[in-house]
Amino acid sequence: MRKLLTLILAAVAITATAENRRLLTMEEAILSRELIPDNYSVIWSESHPDHYLHKGENGWVAVDVRTGSEQSAEAPAKAKPQFKTVENNIVRIMEDGKEHPVTRYTNKNIVVGSSVSRNEFGISGGLFPSPDNTLLAFYQKDESYVSSFPLLDVTTRTGTLFEIKYPMNSMPSERVSVGVYNLLNRQIIYLKVSDFDCERYLTNLTWSPDSKTIYLQVLDRAQQNMHLNAYCATTGKFIATLLTEHSDKYVEPSFPLYFLESDPDKFIYTTSNRDGYQNLYLCSVSGGEVKRLTAVDADVEYAGQSGKFVYYHSTEVSPVERHLFRVDIKSGKSLQLTRGEGWHNCSLSTDGKYFSDNYSSLSVPRVVAVGTTDGKFYREVFRAADPSEGYNYCPIELGTVRSADGKYDNYYRLIKPIDFDPNKKYPIILYVYGGPHSQMVNNSFQAQLRRWEMYMAQRGYVVFVMDNRGTDNRGLEFEQAIHHRCGVCEMEDQMAGIDWLKTHSWVDSSRIGVHGWSYGGFMTISLMTTYPETFKVGVAGGPVIDWKWYEVMYGERYMGNQSTNAEGLASTSLIGKAKNLKGKLLICQGAVDDVVLWQHSLNFIDECIKNWIPVDYFPYPRAQHNVRGKDRVHLMQKVTDYFEDYL
Amino acid sequence: MRKLLTLILAAVAITATAENRRLLTMEEAILSRELIPDNYSVIWSESHPDHYLHKGENGWVAVDVRTGSEQSAEAPAKAKPQFKTVENNIVRIMEDGKEHPVTRYTNKNIVVGSSVSRNEFGISGGLFPSPDNTLLAFYQKDESYVSSFPLLDVTTRTGTLFEIKYPMNSMPSERVSVGVYNLLNRQIIYLKVSDFDCERYLTNLTWSPDSKTIYLQVLDRAQQNMHLNAYCATTGKFIATLLTEHSDKYVEPSFPLYFLESDPDKFIYTTSNRDGYQNLYLCSVSGGEVKRLTAVDADVEYAGQSGKFVYYHSTEVSPVERHLFRVDIKSGKSLQLTRGEGWHNCSLSTDGKYFSDNYSSLSVPRVVAVGTTDGKFYREVFRAADPSEGYNYCPIELGTVRSADGKYDNYYRLIKPIDFDPNKKYPIILYVYGGPHSQMVNNSFQAQLRRWEMYMAQRGYVVFVMDNRGTDNRGLEFEQAIHHRCGVCEMEDQMAGIDWLKTHSWVDSSRIGVHGWSYGGFMTISLMTTYPETFKVGVAGGPVIDWKWYEVMYGERYMGNQSTNAEGLASTSLIGKAKNLKGKLLICQGAVDDVVLWQHSLNFIDECIKNWIPVDYFPYPRAQHNVRGKDRVHLMQKVTDYFEDYL
Repeated sequence: MRKLLTLILAAVAITATAENRRLLTMEEAILSRELIPDNYSVIWSESHPDHYLHKGENGWVAVDVRTGSEQSAEAPAKAKPQFKTVENNIVRIMEDGKEHPVTRYTNKNIVVGSSVSRNEFGISGGLFPSPDNTLLAFYQKDESYVSSFPLLDVTTRTGTLFEIKYPMNSMPSERVSVGVYNLLNRQIIYLKVSDFDCERYLTNLTWSPDSKTIYLQVLDRAQQNMHLNAYCATTGKFIATLLTEHSDKYVEPSFPLYFLESDPDKFIYTTSNRDGYQNLYLCSVSGGEVKRLTAVDADVEYAGQSGKFVYYHSTEVSPVERHLFRVDIKSGKSLQLTRGEGWHNCSLSTDGKYFSDNYSSLSVPRVVAVGTTDGKFYREVFRAADPSEGYNYCPIELGTVRSADGKYDNYYRLIKPIDFDPNKKYPIILYVYGGPHSQMVNNSFQAQLRRWEMYMAQRGYVVFVMDNRGTDNRGLEFEQAIHHRCGVCEMEDQMAGIDWLKTHSWVDSSRIGVHGWSYGGFMTISLMTTYPETFKVGVAGGPVIDWKWYEVMYGERYMGNQSTNAEGLASTSLIGKAKNLKGKLLICQGAVDDVVLWQHSLNFIDECIKNWIPVDYFPYPRAQHNVRGKDRVHLMQKVTDYFEDYL
Repeated sequence: MRKLLTLILAAVAITATAENRRLLTMEEAILSRELIPDNYSVIWSESHPDHYLHKGENGWVAVDVRTGSEQSAEAPAKAKPQFKTVENNIVRIMEDGKEHPVTRYTNKNIVVGSSVSRNEFGISGGLFPSPDNTLLAFYQKDESYVSSFPLLDVTTRTGTLFEIKYPMNSMPSERVSVGVYNLLNRQIIYLKVSDFDCERYLTNLTWSPDSKTIYLQVLDRAQQNMHLNAYCATTGKFIATLLTEHSDKYVEPSFPLYFLESDPDKFIYTTSNRDGYQNLYLCSVSGGEVKRLTAVDADVEYAGQSGKFVYYHSTEVSPVERHLFRVDIKSGKSLQLTRGEGWHNCSLSTDGKYFSDNYSSLSVPRVVAVGTTDGKFYREVFRAADPSEGYNYCPIELGTVRSADGKYDNYYRLIKPIDFDPNKKYPIILYVYGGPHSQMVNNSFQAQLRRWEMYMAQRGYVVFVMDNRGTDNRGLEFEQAIHHRCGVCEMEDQMAGIDWLKTHSWVDSSRIGVHGWSYGGFMTISLMTTYPETFKVGVAGGPVIDWKWYEVMYGERYMGNQSTNAEGLASTSLIGKAKNLKGKLLICQGAVDDVVLWQHSLNFIDECIKNWIPVDYFPYPRAQHNVRGKDRVHLMQKVTDYFEDYL
């Protein structure tokens, strides 16, 4: 059973004392790098035992972990990538200083050597050299059956069309295979995968330490069944299925196998679907599953190993804190290595004797520390100043509101305006994302404040951001509450937050606005059309309007398809809800968005047009799914103006 | 020398008397057919001499022109088109009740039998049967060299791309030829045209009465030289050039030849480029030009002929009035046939003895009359009631403001708000079009009021609409003032109107808005960026932003190309002026606009984004160059809301 967290985070406030300090400009709010806490680099190198490398003001130094004494050092060597270029359907390698093409397909629908499955399932690249560098495994996908979508580049003389392949919900998807190029005989073989359907996912490719075997976590297109399979790397022959997973909702393999250095027969396997949390299992190649290694009611992520210990990050202290632990492989006993509340990111030294820690908490901008992995030694080496010191920042409060189903505490950050007076009434801006694999609020510096929120608070708005069911680091039940009904329980939870806000006399309930992008754009329009009496103004960016227009990998995981979840697809579609819209709604979208196609928002406003529903819109002609860089200042000024004009 | 018009139209007002009458709803303002004056049909038929056919409440009747006595009649026969279908590159004809393909091209870039040159130069169709019905002349265009532009239909499951051919300024254009299909021997020949460049225009195709000769008014791509050529219809051989025209600005042939029934050697030719006005010339096939037939300082349009008379409409009484005249071919003496001030549209009976007249004036909704072409008999047969009688319409004033160069009186209509009080101050909305071949203001019913203007006046706005230099019915110098500098003198004239308005104490000079579509969208943004201190709010629809993105035929006529007018193209471009924008600007555009490509407005807002200039935008996903039908209510509500929110 889950250990209940009893830690209540009282409203921790960063108090604004000097009223004459500066307000943020929009440019500072969006672009300033000065407002990010300073960082301090710690790089572990085999060449300097008991030291870490650090780039100081006078160049690279090796710093003694325990004493802090410094000696000058060479810059750490960057490994030259052996595989030089990957361009669409050609993989090139360097052999004896010469470039050599491994594959060359004339069919443009065959894409080789780059990421597949739209980077879901932990996939981020397409080339996988074997540990002994004699073999190169690579992804290959056939997009012949995938629909093309046109995007228009308006910056050329006459405008230029370019097409993208976009596998859309319920429609034919890409077909993935894994090839292996033998650098010695220059032959290619393909792994002989026969599980499930031809649109299966081949995820988390892992080489055995001896370079003889390749492991794949093979998933059916419906994402309900996973086979962890072993294949011979030189013949491609299927060897065995080491373990399987099944869920009536979904399984989501996201991590490779981590073989034990101390025993190449054994590996660490990360499951998302057992025991209610993402935990580590110790398995063996010869005998399948051995045992659950981390038995905590919290999500766990592998961080390294040394000798008889495996290291992992987890949120077992609190859903909003992340710490480093080590677990004794044999006994299962665990030990927390990080000190100080907050959100820790750690890195193990190459010999496993040390770790570095880079963390912050609500009021701590950044601390960098080094310690020994036995937990006995821990030394702070850097503490960043508060970069917002010169600015009149409003208090940021971190707290919880009970979820709508009464089962969970949902964490929020709340920013009250400058010179907050509880006897006055203030307009509210709800900033929302709400989608899976996100966590907007945690106990890190300023609780992950987006500086625009502070800009708005400085102009008299109360800003509220809260994670809802479906988001990260709360376990499987919490995440899968959204399955086949995206938006439904997310909205219920957000409305629990709004109801809680309304219990305060300083909230002007007639002036509540909402803003979000992508999944948050979907949430914004869902909230505007489901609770039209609550939300006066909304700004939605790059919104999903109907999951039937979203891609296969992410979309079908949560929303199924036209066969398995026609009702859910229809009931969550915002097309049918457009006519409920009463408040002022501005939709923004990148005109060359290749994640949420323009199809979505254009069809929504078209529905508004047909029904004579007022709605506002603004396209960013050169922007893809997000508006980045300098253009983002224009975007956020537009968002701000909309609230200023109408809220 | 031009006869100066001395008629001054005093502010003729339709006075609102009953304050409790209705205001327009937006739906009525945009869609209501009830608010258009009733019409009365007069159809001339050879089968009923001295009568006209009319569809009354009890069916068709033949009405005695002089007495008005009625007898029942058959519905007028509709001629069956001999040439049944034209689909892209296939022309089909009916022969002996069977369908027969004349042409069949597999190359989709060859388009046969439909209009060419984007309907400029009076072109509206692509099939031209000979008078004796033995030959069929047809247009053919080769678009191989013309750029394609993608448009996106978002209403299909995955969105569908369709491409249009769009010949863009300074880029390769279509190549037009004229074919002749012989219905007897089923052979096709092509007219052998060799004048000028391969991108010449073949305009105003006219058959000789004996079906042996085809006349073309051939124009070079630069539109500075025109050859009126004769070709043998059976061999395609060039016969002769009958006359030529040249202008350093442009010539614009827009009318076919009208052969005299009394003498097939002679024809009426309409010139736009001689004598400063569009007038009729009597020419002969054998001997070239004969003489100028209409010698008036006003634009003239051929309306028919009978015996020794030619009939024409002209604006010689006033630029805002149109009347029917006849001219004696021999003596050149002319006689006005229409009675009553206003804008007359007339139609001659088949035997030329009678004419019908359908006219209105500022306060006359519609009158239909019939008369004899000797001018002696004229009888009113219908007078429409004022359809806005039940509505509280504000006064509409018709008047003139001197053009900025002091040479012309520019006509305006001005609508003052309900309960107008000269001691109060009112916001102004300037509605503008301003482009060539338009005339927004004339002495027709309610001075061509667009009912949305009345809707706005009923809500407290002063609405002002004025024609500027460049527009129709004012002669060549007035029209060509814009040559190579589109927008420049048009803006000067509009500002003269604004300055005149500002002389009135009831004008709130701090609240001036501007709205226009297409050329008027170009004018709106030009005004907003050239006079940023004058205009507080603007709404531009489907705006031309840079003439380099506009099409060849219309665009190069006025703006030349990158070789001949690089400076003018650059200086009129709104891209460079975006950073001058200070007021609130909303741009609307149809997302599948095939006249002003999306390129224009997207590049403008992109320039605003780059310069952090606030700007608003709204696309109509299914709309082409105009937003029509029911969707137009949404559009005009949006335009209205924008003025209501910000002006």
